[in-house]
Amino acid sequence: MVFNRVTPKLVERLRAAVGADCVHVDDESLLLHASDETEDFVFRPEVVVVPRAADAVAHVMRLATEYRVPVTPRGAGTGLSGGALPVHGGIVLATKNLGRILEIDRENLMAVVEPGVITQVFQEAVEAVGLFYPVDPASRGSCFLGGNLAECSGGPRAVKYGVTKDFVTGIEAVLPDGTLVHHGGKLLKNVTGYNLTQLIVGSEGTLAIVTKIYLRLLPLPNHRVMLLAPFKSLEEPARAVPAIMHAGVVPSVLEFMERDAVEITERHLGKSFPHAEAAAHLMIELDGNDEGVIAREAERVAEIVLAHGATDVLLADTDAKMGGLWAMRRAFGAAVKSESVYKEEDTVVPRNQLVALVKGVKEIAARHGLRTVCYGHAGDGNLHVNILKMDMSEERWNTALDPAIREIFALTVTLGGLISGEHGIGYVQKDYMPIAYTSEEIALMRAIKRAFDPMGILNPGKLLPSAGAD
Amino acid sequence: MVFNRVTPKLVERLRAAVGADCVHVDDESLLLHASDETEDFVFRPEVVVVPRAADAVAHVMRLATEYRVPVTPRGAGTGLSGGALPVHGGIVLATKNLGRILEIDRENLMAVVEPGVITQVFQEAVEAVGLFYPVDPASRGSCFLGGNLAECSGGPRAVKYGVTKDFVTGIEAVLPDGTLVHHGGKLLKNVTGYNLTQLIVGSEGTLAIVTKIYLRLLPLPNHRVMLLAPFKSLEEPARAVPAIMHAGVVPSVLEFMERDAVEITERHLGKSFPHAEAAAHLMIELDGNDEGVIAREAERVAEIVLAHGATDVLLADTDAKMGGLWAMRRAFGAAVKSESVYKEEDTVVPRNQLVALVKGVKEIAARHGLRTVCYGHAGDGNLHVNILKMDMSEERWNTALDPAIREIFALTVTLGGLISGEHGIGYVQKDYMPIAYTSEEIALMRAIKRAFDPMGILNPGKLLPSAGAD
Repeated sequence: MVFNRVTPKLVERLRAAVGADCVHVDDESLLLHASDETEDFVFRPEVVVVPRAADAVAHVMRLATEYRVPVTPRGAGTGLSGGALPVHGGIVLATKNLGRILEIDRENLMAVVEPGVITQVFQEAVEAVGLFYPVDPASRGSCFLGGNLAECSGGPRAVKYGVTKDFVTGIEAVLPDGTLVHHGGKLLKNVTGYNLTQLIVGSEGTLAIVTKIYLRLLPLPNHRVMLLAPFKSLEEPARAVPAIMHAGVVPSVLEFMERDAVEITERHLGKSFPHAEAAAHLMIELDGNDEGVIAREAERVAEIVLAHGATDVLLADTDAKMGGLWAMRRAFGAAVKSESVYKEEDTVVPRNQLVALVKGVKEIAARHGLRTVCYGHAGDGNLHVNILKMDMSEERWNTALDPAIREIFALTVTLGGLISGEHGIGYVQKDYMPIAYTSEEIALMRAIKRAFDPMGILNPGKLLPSAGAD
Repeated sequence: MVFNRVTPKLVERLRAAVGADCVHVDDESLLLHASDETEDFVFRPEVVVVPRAADAVAHVMRLATEYRVPVTPRGAGTGLSGGALPVHGGIVLATKNLGRILEIDRENLMAVVEPGVITQVFQEAVEAVGLFYPVDPASRGSCFLGGNLAECSGGPRAVKYGVTKDFVTGIEAVLPDGTLVHHGGKLLKNVTGYNLTQLIVGSEGTLAIVTKIYLRLLPLPNHRVMLLAPFKSLEEPARAVPAIMHAGVVPSVLEFMERDAVEITERHLGKSFPHAEAAAHLMIELDGNDEGVIAREAERVAEIVLAHGATDVLLADTDAKMGGLWAMRRAFGAAVKSESVYKEEDTVVPRNQLVALVKGVKEIAARHGLRTVCYGHAGDGNLHVNILKMDMSEERWNTALDPAIREIFALTVTLGGLISGEHGIGYVQKDYMPIAYTSEEIALMRAIKRAFDPMGILNPGKLLPSAGAD
């Protein structure tokens, strides 16, 4: 793809189109939109546009098409695969001025939102009227629903409730040429033509820019308890996970964390965690509308984890106790980041392959002389593998990292898994796509991309491998 | 699209490719594959192929591509939108020899199946090991899981559990050029590239032929009760539906049926139904693992329907009683079909718009002198509108029908709905697509079709409007 640079004339036309106060070319704005939460990448855009309405987004895309300038959509910039990095410069189109909750509809258990709504703000708004939006990324305090949609965010509750795609029932979106399209709505059933909604969810802003989202809601469960179970090995908790599901209990949360994740986070937060010396923990939450049922399920889960080697089972049944554990769990990412230069891989396998994955990751890392810290959503087989540089030389790090990652991804595929569960492919994993897909499968994805974006101006350099890499 | 006819040479090569016993050109076979359950259409294919393996399907598609001959995939032929009709002749590729349940995996709560498995056979196989596949089309005794996937079948339990797309986590499929592709697997989370699985689910066999399906399962609920509530008007039950959801109870089934549907089915089955004289009924099922919780929910639902005008609430709490009601409900389609020449529309609206939809349909039908019988899945706003010819003259029927359908569909769109909830667009609704979508939206769908099928040989004449109709 050959793109043009942003010219003063284009900036002037953008200002006329969306309002001068929504177009920024100052150094500070450009730098602020040059990075996201992915490692330490910096790619400066040439102009930042923050439209206030869908038709303004459409106008920006028409101009980008006319000038053949790349556009990188951006939510809150909390992504972990570089989806919001303007790797080809051009325009960053940020959605922070599209931040309204348009409707919470209690009769249809649906909400209609703009993409720039902060996930936690939305969760709290629906909970205030007795409803529940279960998708709960660790960055919920700052990430946007639009970014969640673009990446198909998951989080810890996916084991029971599913991921973002399972809640999006419709969208309004702007295509790369500026056409505004609608699909779906407040509908649980819809087979009217191809499922554009489900194709666009998780497409990482490479097919369209979403300007309105229809989200399904649930009644808010009244009760919730959490169990914390320490283990002496990494394999025992991984084995307990399928046993819990096999028993017919579906926890709302089923998290795995190894000792290093807990210790690093204790240091980072200056707080202590129960049984921090354990090799690994399972953190298990049960929710529902009947206290008695939950108590019985909790007892059953406790029996199973004890039978699988847990050395204790701690019960957290108050908001304060559960809140403390959640604060710890949500800080893992930031804690690892503060510990060392690192690279995070978002592996996913069938949940009963978690034992093999954890053992395999440790063996591969050891062979390459790399330290790994693993934690993640054991209930859905989604393990975040953090590879830490620590005091390794730059040269050795650069030599060891790529072959180790390739081995880890090859292992996930062998185990029936794939290379990203919820962070997306984005900029940092795209050249690993051929580990997961054949060249024909990648060619099909390229053809889908061309169907939406024949000029390739929307979020170029993401999701699909660099030309030639497949 | 210009296609070639099937030549004797092609038949010979098909025989060599998939085995002579899997290729049929006799009259009986051709006629058997000329119709599905959609009205009374007959389109004879030129050859019927019933491959036994995915690589045989791939071989057929390579030959079809080489000879530029259309291929119509067919499951059990129970579709209601003509998806399996070979409207351009050519090859019918039937999946009945791909009928194995490959695996029921209790640790991962997943199953792997071939497309030709009968839905009820699969439901019973998973229930035998304490698991649950909730998607429950009325034709479950004969329809195939592959057809359910192609149409994104729904059924009565969608209000609580979702539709086919919510259970498909991966596929193996053959593209029109014969390429075998995989996507997803036994994975609850997967953001590795574009969501080919979700794009192919509901694409009505126009993008690819699915040869293997990964399905998510749930633990089987232990308890179930059903309530039957008769009403004196059509509007009262439609108003009760959002009130039930508003109260925080999510029934596993929430069906609406008007008197005519019940009466026609009584005649058809020679059985009687309680309160058959009521203007309409709600049939409500609650399920779960705790009898006490279900009893409390049933009481709450009974209060709500009584407050909304129900004249009685009957409780069915044995398998026999519930089975009798289900047999009645599942017979509606066949009963209507036996009553008269008819046309069924599969409207869907947000559930709180059901009152407006029912009233509007009756008003439109009356104005056009047409009789309608309405029933459907009230909990998800999916109303099946059956328009009956009865003793109307052929000429008047042909004149009145199309404008009435256009008005009904325009109404659903005005109410925030769409023109098919679970039956698909197929052959019979395709020229109504411009009521639901702009020409740009349809152009985008055409571009997606071309990305998969540049020669247009796979299930031509379905889903997208005839050239020029948009």
